[in-house]
Order: sequence, then C-alpha cells, then structure tokens
Amino acid sequence: MISLFQPDTEWLITETDFNAERHQIAESIFSIGNGHMGQRANFEEQYSGKSLRGNYIGGVFFPDKTRVGWWKNGYPDYFAKVLNAPSWIGVNVWVNNQPLDLAQCEILSFYRQLDMQEGILSRCVQVKMPDGTKIAFETERFVSVVDTEIGALRCGLRAYTNCSIRVESTINSDVHNEDSNYNESFWDSIAHNIDSTYIYAIDRTKKTPYDVPQFAVATAVNTLFSIENQPVKSQRACSGKLLSESVEIELQAQQWLDIEKIACQISTLNYAENELAQTVEIRLSEASQKGFAQLKQEHVQAWAEKWKTSDIRIEGDEAAQQGIRFNIFHLHQTYSGNDSRLNIGPKGFTGEKYGGSTYWDTEAFCLPFYLATSPEQVSKQLLMYRYKQLDRAIANAEKLGFSGGAALFPMVTMTGDECHNEWEITFEEIHRNGAIAYAIYNYTNYTGDKSYLMEGGLEVLIAISRFWAQRVTLSPTKRKYMILGVTGPNEYENNVHNNWYTNYFARWCLHYTLETISWAKRVAKQEFAELCAKISFDENFEVLRWTDITKNMYVPEDENFGIILQNDGYLDKEQKTVAELPANQRPINQHWSWDRILRSCYIKQADVVQGLYVFEKDFDTEYIERNFNFYEARCVHESSLSPCIHSVVASKIGNAAKAYELYLRTARLDLDDYNKEAHEGLHITSMAGTWLAIVQGFAGMRTQSHTISFAPQLPKEWNKLSFSILYRGALLHICMTASAIEISLAEGELREIIVNDNYYSLQERKVVVNL
Amino acid sequence: MISLFQPDTEWLITETDFNAERHQIAESIFSIGNGHMGQRANFEEQYSGKSLRGNYIGGVFFPDKTRVGWWKNGYPDYFAKVLNAPSWIGVNVWVNNQPLDLAQCEILSFYRQLDMQEGILSRCVQVKMPDGTKIAFETERFVSVVDTEIGALRCGLRAYTNCSIRVESTINSDVHNEDSNYNESFWDSIAHNIDSTYIYAIDRTKKTPYDVPQFAVATAVNTLFSIENQPVKSQRACSGKLLSESVEIELQAQQWLDIEKIACQISTLNYAENELAQTVEIRLSEASQKGFAQLKQEHVQAWAEKWKTSDIRIEGDEAAQQGIRFNIFHLHQTYSGNDSRLNIGPKGFTGEKYGGSTYWDTEAFCLPFYLATSPEQVSKQLLMYRYKQLDRAIANAEKLGFSGGAALFPMVTMTGDECHNEWEITFEEIHRNGAIAYAIYNYTNYTGDKSYLMEGGLEVLIAISRFWAQRVTLSPTKRKYMILGVTGPNEYENNVHNNWYTNYFARWCLHYTLETISWAKRVAKQEFAELCAKISFDENFEVLRWTDITKNMYVPEDENFGIILQNDGYLDKEQKTVAELPANQRPINQHWSWDRILRSCYIKQADVVQGLYVFEKDFDTEYIERNFNFYEARCVHESSLSPCIHSVVASKIGNAAKAYELYLRTARLDLDDYNKEAHEGLHITSMAGTWLAIVQGFAGMRTQSHTISFAPQLPKEWNKLSFSILYRGALLHICMTASAIEISLAEGELREIIVNDNYYSLQERKVVVNL
Repeated sequence: MISLFQPDTEWLITETDFNAERHQIAESIFSIGNGHMGQRANFEEQYSGKSLRGNYIGGVFFPDKTRVGWWKNGYPDYFAKVLNAPSWIGVNVWVNNQPLDLAQCEILSFYRQLDMQEGILSRCVQVKMPDGTKIAFETERFVSVVDTEIGALRCGLRAYTNCSIRVESTINSDVHNEDSNYNESFWDSIAHNIDSTYIYAIDRTKKTPYDVPQFAVATAVNTLFSIENQPVKSQRACSGKLLSESVEIELQAQQWLDIEKIACQISTLNYAENELAQTVEIRLSEASQKGFAQLKQEHVQAWAEKWKTSDIRIEGDEAAQQGIRFNIFHLHQTYSGNDSRLNIGPKGFTGEKYGGSTYWDTEAFCLPFYLATSPEQVSKQLLMYRYKQLDRAIANAEKLGFSGGAALFPMVTMTGDECHNEWEITFEEIHRNGAIAYAIYNYTNYTGDKSYLMEGGLEVLIAISRFWAQRVTLSPTKRKYMILGVTGPNEYENNVHNNWYTNYFARWCLHYTLETISWAKRVAKQEFAELCAKISFDENFEVLRWTDITKNMYVPEDENFGIILQNDGYLDKEQKTVAELPANQRPINQHWSWDRILRSCYIKQADVVQGLYVFEKDFDTEYIERNFNFYEARCVHESSLSPCIHSVVASKIGNAAKAYELYLRTARLDLDDYNKEAHEGLHITSMAGTWLAIVQGFAGMRTQSHTISFAPQLPKEWNKLSFSILYRGALLHICMTASAIEISLAEGELREIIVNDNYYSLQERKVVVNL
Repeated sequence: MISLFQPDTEWLITETDFNAERHQIAESIFSIGNGHMGQRANFEEQYSGKSLRGNYIGGVFFPDKTRVGWWKNGYPDYFAKVLNAPSWIGVNVWVNNQPLDLAQCEILSFYRQLDMQEGILSRCVQVKMPDGTKIAFETERFVSVVDTEIGALRCGLRAYTNCSIRVESTINSDVHNEDSNYNESFWDSIAHNIDSTYIYAIDRTKKTPYDVPQFAVATAVNTLFSIENQPVKSQRACSGKLLSESVEIELQAQQWLDIEKIACQISTLNYAENELAQTVEIRLSEASQKGFAQLKQEHVQAWAEKWKTSDIRIEGDEAAQQGIRFNIFHLHQTYSGNDSRLNIGPKGFTGEKYGGSTYWDTEAFCLPFYLATSPEQVSKQLLMYRYKQLDRAIANAEKLGFSGGAALFPMVTMTGDECHNEWEITFEEIHRNGAIAYAIYNYTNYTGDKSYLMEGGLEVLIAISRFWAQRVTLSPTKRKYMILGVTGPNEYENNVHNNWYTNYFARWCLHYTLETISWAKRVAKQEFAELCAKISFDENFEVLRWTDITKNMYVPEDENFGIILQNDGYLDKEQKTVAELPANQRPINQHWSWDRILRSCYIKQADVVQGLYVFEKDFDTEYIERNFNFYEARCVHESSLSPCIHSVVASKIGNAAKAYELYLRTARLDLDDYNKEAHEGLHITSMAGTWLAIVQGFAGMRTQSHTISFAPQLPKEWNKLSFSILYRGALLHICMTASAIEISLAEGELREIIVNDNYYSLQERKVVVNL
C-alpha cells in the first residue's frame, strides 16, 4: 500500500493529489488547533463531496440526552459533547457563475501542506471549471497559538483568462454534530450584525433540562478583498444562518484577487453573554490592525519556542521522523495548559467521536509528555482540572452509594459529571481513580515541587483513598480485602473480581496518601489541620483502616506460572496466544461476538503490563520479563493506547526487537490510517504513547529522586535519536547513537545525570557516555 | 391502602368508581384476549384522559430498529414488537353536540366488570354532560374464543331527557406503539372501503431493510343501530385513517339507542394479502348472521369448558380465590395452543412492554400449567414453536461463533431470531437453552407420550447439546469442564464463571440427550438413522465427547457451608441477608447503581433454588433445606418469576409459613399493583408461577413414572383448596383440607395415585386420604 501522506520532508505533511475518497482522512490529518480552539482541515470554499465539517472550541459543549438500549440505575442523563461551533473559514467562489467545488470541477493540480514547524495549513489547486475556464486558488490559514481567540486565513485566486468572479466570505452558524444522539440541532441564532465595522453572529446552545450552562459564542470576521493591493468593495448579506461579505468582479487574465480574513471567536466560557458583541469587535479590531502577516509571524515564533523544548529528531528513518513530529505537533495543538477548565479529548479538535471529553488517557499517557516538554504550569493545569472537579467526583461516588467524601472521578467528562453510559465501564472501570492519584505523585516527583500537595493534591488523594476504602470487600472466606466487580484496563474482561492492576493500584493510592499525610503533618501542620477540618478527616479511624487495607489487600498471583494473575478466573480460560489467531479473525472486536471475546484469554490492551510499567521499581527485571512474555503473547492491542506501554516494558527487559515492533504499531497510526478510522479524527492521546515509547523506552528515561536517568537502546533501524527534555528548570538535549549517548545542559542547572545506573557529572554541561 | 379491585365475588373483577389516575391500570387488569388477539380495556367512546390504547394480534409484529448506547458485535438489527393494530372498538358519542368523554363530564355512577367465568368485559356509566343533560351508557364486549378472528360489542345509550345524539362507530388505523424506539409510525393504510356491505380498512406494516415479512391486516365491522328494535339508518365516512358509520337522532327521554357491532380482524399471517378484502367480508358476514347474542353464547360455553379442567377453588380466602382465578383466566386468554407460530409474551395482549415476544418464561413457568389444565396438543404447540425455529437458533449460535449445528435459542424472539440487545443477557444468559430442552422432557414425562421425541424433540436436544459441548472450556488448571462468562437466572450477577444452575443444567441436557439417543436407537432405529444423516450427527465423536463432559463437568459447591456455590467468587462477597436491607433501599434495582447490585450478595430471582426446584429428585430434603435457607435469605425477589419457585421449594421442605408468605408476593401482583407497573400491562408469565405455588407447592403434585403424586400441606389461612388436573386422558378433581385430601377421577382412567409416598388405588374412582 502506498501511504497517502508521504514524508516529503521532516517538517511537512503533504498531499500532492486529490482523492475525494480520502478527503475526510486528510481533513483529520491536516487539522489545526491552538489548545483553545481547533478545526478540521475543511476546504474554505464550497465542497459538495463527503466531508466532516468541524470547528470546535474547547469547553463549549452541549449536554446530549443519553441514548441507551436498557437503562441502568446510575446512568447519567446526558453526554457532554464538544460542539461543532459556527464556522468562520468560508470563502465561497463562483467563476462565471459556476461554483468552485472540487467535487464538480476538473482538478489540474492539487497540493495540500501542513507545516508542523510553523503550524500553518495551506493549499494550492489549479482547476478547470465546467465551462473550460482555468483558475488557480491558494489558501493559507492558522489558529493563533499566541492569541487563541484569533484565527486568520489568506486566499489568492487567479484566473488564466478574463472571467467574472464572485467571492463570498462567510460566517456559517448552520452547523451540526454528526454524532448527535437524536439528530438534534444544538444551536439557536440569537443575534447577528452586518452593519457594524465587522460582521458577526452570536449563537447560543439550546435550552435543556440539565443543570449545565448554556453557552453563547460570538464569531466575527474582517475580510479584505484586493486586486494588486487595491481594495475591492464588498456587499454584506444575511441569509438564514449564513452571514456573508462578497465581491463580484471581472478578473483579468493572470490577475490575483487576494482575500485576507481575520476571525475572532469568543464564548461565554470567558465573557458575559451581554459583553460578547462589543468584545468580539474590539478583539477583532486589535487583530485586524496587526493584519495577517504580523499575526502569522507571532504564531510561527511561538511554535518555534514549543519545538525548542519538545522536538525529537530521528536520523535514518524519515517516516519515523515525520511520525513523531506529527504526534508532538498534535499534542501541542490540543493542549496548551493555559486554562484549567480544558483538557485533552481523545480526538482533540480533529473530530467529534468520544464527545471531546476527558478520559484517564490524560493522566496515564499524556501527562509525562507535557511534564518533560512544557513549563511546569502546563502539567499543573491538568491536575487543577481534576481538583476543580473534585466536588463532582464526590457527587458521582454518592450516586453509586459511597459516602463520607469518597470520590470516583468520571470515566468520561467535561465538567466533572460522569458522561459515560455503559455499566461495565462507567461503574466498574474504577482503576481510573488510580491514574488520577498517580498523576499527583508523578508531577510532584518529576518537578520536585511538593507545593501542589497542599494546594489540592492531598485533598484529591484523601477523597480517592476514601473511595478505595469503601470499595474493597473483606472476603469472608479468604480474610483478605478484595475488589469485586471491576473492569481493568483490559476491557475484554468485564465485571471481574480482583483485577490485579486495580487492586495493586488501590493499595498504592492508600499507601501514597498515608505517606503524604505523614509528610503534611511534618511540614505543613497548620494547613493539614485546616484540611482535616474542611473535609472532616477522621485521622484515627481512617488512617488505621487504610493501613489495615494496605497490609491485607489481595493481590492475585499464580504460583504455577510464577506470574501475576490478571484477575480471578483468568487462568481457567483456554490459554492461547495471539499467534494462534487466524488473520481473518482480527481485530477480534470486529469478528467475534462480545461474549466470545470476554471468555477468551485475549487481552485488549496493556493491563498487567500497564501495572508493571507504572510500578516497575517494585519488581525485578526477571519477574517483569516473565510476566511480559506471558501477557504480551495474549494481547491483541486493540486499543491504540496499548502497544506503546508494551514497547516501553520491552525496552526495559532488553527486548529491543519487540520494543521497536510495538513502537511501529502506533507511531504512524493516523498518518497511515492503520485502523481505517482516521476520517473520524486523530488518536490524540495515543500520540503521547509514542513519545513514551521513544523517551521512556528507547532512551530509557526515568525520574529518580534528584535527577533523571537513561538506559539507552537505539533501535537498529535508526542512526541517531535526539530530543530535548525540561527537568526542574533545566533544558537538556539528548543525543543517542548505537554506541554513545550525549547529554548536554542547554539551559538551567543540573548537577548530575544517570546513564545505565552510573552517575555522571554535568559540571561541564555536557556528558558523553559510550555504550 | 384500599385495593382498587375488590374481590366482590369469586368470578368477577369489578370497579365501582372511576379514577382517572388508575385508569391505565384498569385498562390492563380488565384486558380481554382469546390466544389469537387481545386488547386492553380501553373505552369504546372518545376519552381525552391518559390511556394506553392497545389492540394486538398475535404474531403480527414490526422489526423496530435496535437502539443501544454502545454497539456490541453480535447484536441484532431489530427488536420484533407486537404491533398495536387498527382498532375496531370505537363508538364515539355526542350528546347535544358535546362529546361523551369521561375526562370532561361529571360522572354520576361508574361500574366496570370483568366476568372471568364468561370472558366478558362490561361497563355501565351515568354521566351529566356539561349542558346538564344526563345519560346512561352501557357497553359489553368480548373477543371470541370460538372464532378467534371475531370480536363483538354491544352498547346502549339512554338519555334521561330528550336530546340530540350522534354516535359514530369507527375503525381507527391511526395507531402507534408507545414503545417505538425512534417514535416511528409502523403502519401504512393501503385500502379502505365504505361502499361495500361492511366498512373495512386494510393496513400494511411499513417496509424495512430487514429480512422479515411485512404484514397486512384487514379490519371490518358491521354496526347495527336501533331504537326499540327499529333500525336507524347510518351514514358512512372516511377521514384520514378513520372509517366511520354514524347516526344522528333525536332521542326521547328514557329511550335506549342500541348499538351492536361485530368485528372481524384478519391478517396475512393466515391469508394472502390479495384475499384479505374478500375474506374479511365473508368471515364478518358469517359472524353477523349469528349476531351478538349467539356469538356470546358460544363464547361463554367455550369458557365453561376451559374452566372445567383448570379452575382452582379456595375456601376461606376470597382475595386468594379471586387472585388465582384472575391468573388462570389471563393465561387462557393469552395462549390457546391453536397455532404453533404463537407463544406467550410476558405481557400477553395487555401491554407493549417486552415487545410481546417469547422468553424462557414459557418453558420454565407456563408449560406445567398448560400440561395440567389443557389438552396435550396445547402444550405440544409450545414445543413445536421452538422446533420450527431451530434453524434460526442454529443461525443465532453461528453468529456467536458456534458451528456444526449447535443451537442457542434466543433470549427474546418472535420468529426465532434473537431480538434482545444487552450483552450480559443476550449472549450470556444461555441457561435458557436448558429450559427449552427440559420442556421436552417435561412434556414427554407428563404425557407419557414419547412420539414428540422423534418428531423434533431429539433434533432440538442434539442441537442444544452441540451448543453446550462447544460452550464449555476445559480449565487448564482444574482439568474440569467449566462454563465461563455467563449470566444465570439471577441477573444480579453478570458475566460470571460457573453459574451452578447453568453448569448443572448443561450437564443434564447432555445426559438426557444421550439417554434419548439410546432410546431412539432401540425403538426408532430407522428414524434415528435418518435424523443422523439429516443433521450430520457423528455418533462416535459426539457421544464420546458429551459423555466425557457429563463426567467431568465442574459443579461448584462450598465445603465450609455445605452448600451449592451459586457461581465462582460468590462467597467472596460480603454476606448479608435481606433482613439487613433497610426498607427504604428496596427494591434495590431502583435505589442502587448497577455495580453495587452486582457486587452485593443479593439475588434477583431464584437461581440455585430454581435448580433445586427443577432437579429436586437429585437431592435429599436436608440438602435442599440447607441451600434454600441460605439462598432465600439473600434473595430480594425482584423478578415476579421468583417467589413462586421459592414457595414450591419451601413447601417441599415443610416450611409452610414461608411457602405461604412467598405465594402471597405474586398471587395478586397485578390486581393489587404491588410493583406500580400494572399500567404497562400484566405479568402474564408469572401468573403461571402462582399456579405452580398452589398445585406443586401446597398440593405437592409431582409427576412420577406412571402416575402423579401429592404431598398436601394446606396453608392454615385457607379452609379448603380444590382444583382439577388433566393427566394422560384422565380428569382428576382434587380437594384438600388441613386434615384430608380427596382425589376423584371425573373422567378417563388412572389406576393409582400417590399421596405422601403411599400408593392408593383409584379403582373406586375416588380416594380420601386423611393427613
């Protein structure tokens, strides 16, 4: 198969011919975003072919009424979905009264490009219209990472012969979410203005019976039409939910019509509804004064800053190079850490699936990436997001029968309220609470900054520990604390007893909370006392009970195999390996009925291995290897979040070939559309996994108590790997070959570094270790 | 609380005042049916209050597109729903141009009655119209159990002062199913005629993408209006989907306007679509010639025959008397055994919930009732229903990955195709296959007639055994055959390993099939050889494998408690009893989230106890008692099918008080609307359970190899219990008091009978045994 997206150069994603069948995939791949808003790479002009039009604003959602077959007590009333917001990119073109529509015209040439270094989407097409007129149409656009409410685009239109041209720059509020449960429209138009300086539309989400805010969004654009720097006067109109500003001209052969469009989109997330009209005009006015060129320059500059601390360079494998940059680029596009109300949806701003809400992916997969590549504040915002939703997590636990301030963070959420509605996941995939607690440890351990613990961290830890303490069952027969009726990370087992990962993680949470309480009593006595009072923490009772549970938790192992037991009953299953699965039955989730999947030994995604990854330091390498070999043989990796973790662990145990094979399974997942689902949007959170596979896997980076360590093992397919890491104020450049690793301290201070268990001083700001 | 439905007399259900809030409950309670069609007790005249209008024809369904939250591989495309068919009961009345609408008029008196002895619904109201005019309105109707495509009604309308009256007799095709998944209308009108002898409408179900037949239904009525036996000439009209025949007259004070309406409703279930128009007129003509009075007389006579063999009389407890008759009455209304394409929906013809489809309730709960109270043919039709759907059950198993002629009968079905869409039930509640196999044993054992075994029974048994043989897993660790990932009858555990009931039943199925094969080889060698050829039965391989499985099936027991283990892990749960549940948390399915229910030890419905009921003869009474006491204490009986089985077992172990307490929980379930859901329809299948509690419980009736036995234990609250039983051609009357049981042979022959393990000769056609 020839890949659609060729690694033309290291920084560019390009497409050199147009295939309507692949257009929706391209719309995902070439998506642009700035952490606050984003959009699929829809065409600016009208297009009658298949397209998923999408423009999304982080945090602006609609509570879509839950749809289930059979209601279960405890299900949420709605699923919060990031809304397809009014679109400002429209630049419709008619040539001699014929619409410029790539589905209807003969395409003479086509070039689309995403410049990942600069964060710019551009396109250039040459088209023969039905009447034979040839034209060229070029576009360039971005959503500013500097001023995140601003977007800008520039188009150029050239005719090769004299012709009449009509161009219409639009704001389109007639937008829908494809994934609406009941085919409802989510927006009401409440105001528009075509008589002011700029045209703008204000739209408000429909009223619902749910206790969530309605959002209003103001979208304003300023369009300048010019020919050879001479402005062309435009007409404005409003037709239904479409506002437009248009010009009709006779274009001479070879002349260019230039269109420059600056847009501002703001919402009641940040402004009062009655301020929207005035604000959007002021904000747009400021941006318009800068103009496209200056806005672009600032935007490109900001991207350069991001790349400085987060780029990864791979020599000897252009496809891998493009793949990892693509992933890093999209992670930065999705989340910037500027707003603690925002988070990372599995599809980011590239599609509607999963509703744009937050999963445990954030803490388990994405946090390490942001910790190592962005200022601390960026990661801290992710922790604050959960802390701010703690009251909702407590309410969620209460809905499930827990009390006394126990918190169960939701499986899927926008505002903190649970949105998921599949009992075996919503109610039972409770290990997510572990990932959220671990993120606090991870942040504190990586940054060395314990201040967050008393700013919310400990409060979250106590609430999570309270949950575990109520969720365990003391088995009357085995006299051990068990956790019954759960779904582990491996969603191909449901409602099992004693999922090892969950039990182990629950015990760890209790232990870490107890440890943090001891610390707080030593160093922050007063604040701890205040916290105890605030949350009615009964130290005598709770500390004792938690200690008891940590000491008597049932942690299943199998003596015969000398391995961890994934969950009770797992070894009663017929034991087969993935190698025994006929190719035509894979993926099993498309070929097998659900019960067959459940009673098979096949594992969807890292489960025991996920635990070995997180708690690596608790086990010796031989034990990890034995478990890895057993469970990797049974894992079908039918989640994009799975191979990366197995890859890190394979590197750990020195199985380089396996590590590389597993790395490849997600490295270019979307670029090469392995799973035939890129048209729905990109796998944003799993992109962080490939970063893990490289940095924690091939480079073997780990956080130690006062520094970081490396255990490099370059894939033999690569010549060189280099990347940068932010660590406690220091910027480190790491460069690995098969024979050596060079670590240089580009900024900040760090005394020493560990490579393969040996300490090396950084006094000279550079270390070269031969391997 | 005063019960709505007073036990006025033993044979009547009556309601003496009108309460609009309870009207939908009454519409269910007073429902009428004849096994082929049935209807809720909707008012004949227009009614603007809350009402669930329902008129259903057995077997006429619509494939309603599946609605789920999250699709699982293997789910069916549609749920077959018995359709709300065009209504023929309409008799709208206007008095001085004011509609007679009980929601709008002052009701001076109201009396509604269901005569269970005769199968007649009637009503009598006196009303003051808004203008002060007083009128009386009486109605009487039935659906004939003799000619099941015919229904008839008679109304009388009397004014107390002179007034103008308009009466409109209608056929209304504008009908909907309230439980439609996507609010769709299911019918298209395809023809109507108001110019022929009778008015009729022909309606067809909408076209769907599914491979199921479309149905057409013809509905014809003949209405005679008369005053003091003088016909009144009527006008006919068609307005949209409403056909009508109406009169407008000036009625003198105290005069009666009589309306007699005969209806015929036929469908393409029994006739070609192009024959419907002609046939419905011929059939209606025949019925009209008989007239209301004769049709009613035949109908009443047929009901007398049914009661002769199935009535139960209870002395000393009028409420119990009414309750059991109500249940028997509805069971006969729902199923008559005339058509092997029909079965028993959980709501019969009294509501739409559960789609009117077939569940395992039929075999597990209803069959014993029909076996003992109706000619053998009635029960045999229930077996034939499954046999005719065997190919679909095999296809269903194939969809789930089974092969080689293995059959999994559906959880819910109309045509044999699975309609249910909840994975833990659809795919995992596979014990239903056991009930379907056991029904074959039950029928053969009760009737003594083995002929069905070679007419389909053995073929079904082999297909079911093939399923079990593939569904078991040989545990690599325990070297036993296990059944993983199931839901037992207790739906408050999902996806468990080794549900004892399922494992035990699977083993029994294999054993019984092997036994039947041996028998067939002896007595029906040629037919057996033909069957083997037809279904490619590999005797060498299959018999050996099945024998191996029966010998090495894992059947979980707990040595500590000396009890059966409901399923793996059950005793790791916190052990609490129902007595410890606060009243305000019951039923737990309304107060607890699903995960909490699943990890609690509380049991929804008879599970281990259901197995002890079915396989009673395999266990000694002490063991049954120990298990009963353990599991009854944990069973919340949140299925209407549960207390009856526990009641039978309580009788078996001599716990009369418990047996009676459990009996009461369903005896008047709908009449007294315990569960606040009677408005949706009645619990038809659980009605059979109360029959079991009396006949198998209090009377202790069991089938022995050549006769039946009794172990009587009359509840102390009753003076006398008598009932009739059909057994191998004999009609037995049984009459029990606390001190004696009298058994008399009313018809046919039977040599002896067993009471409390002692044989008694029936040579004198009567036996009295003092207890």
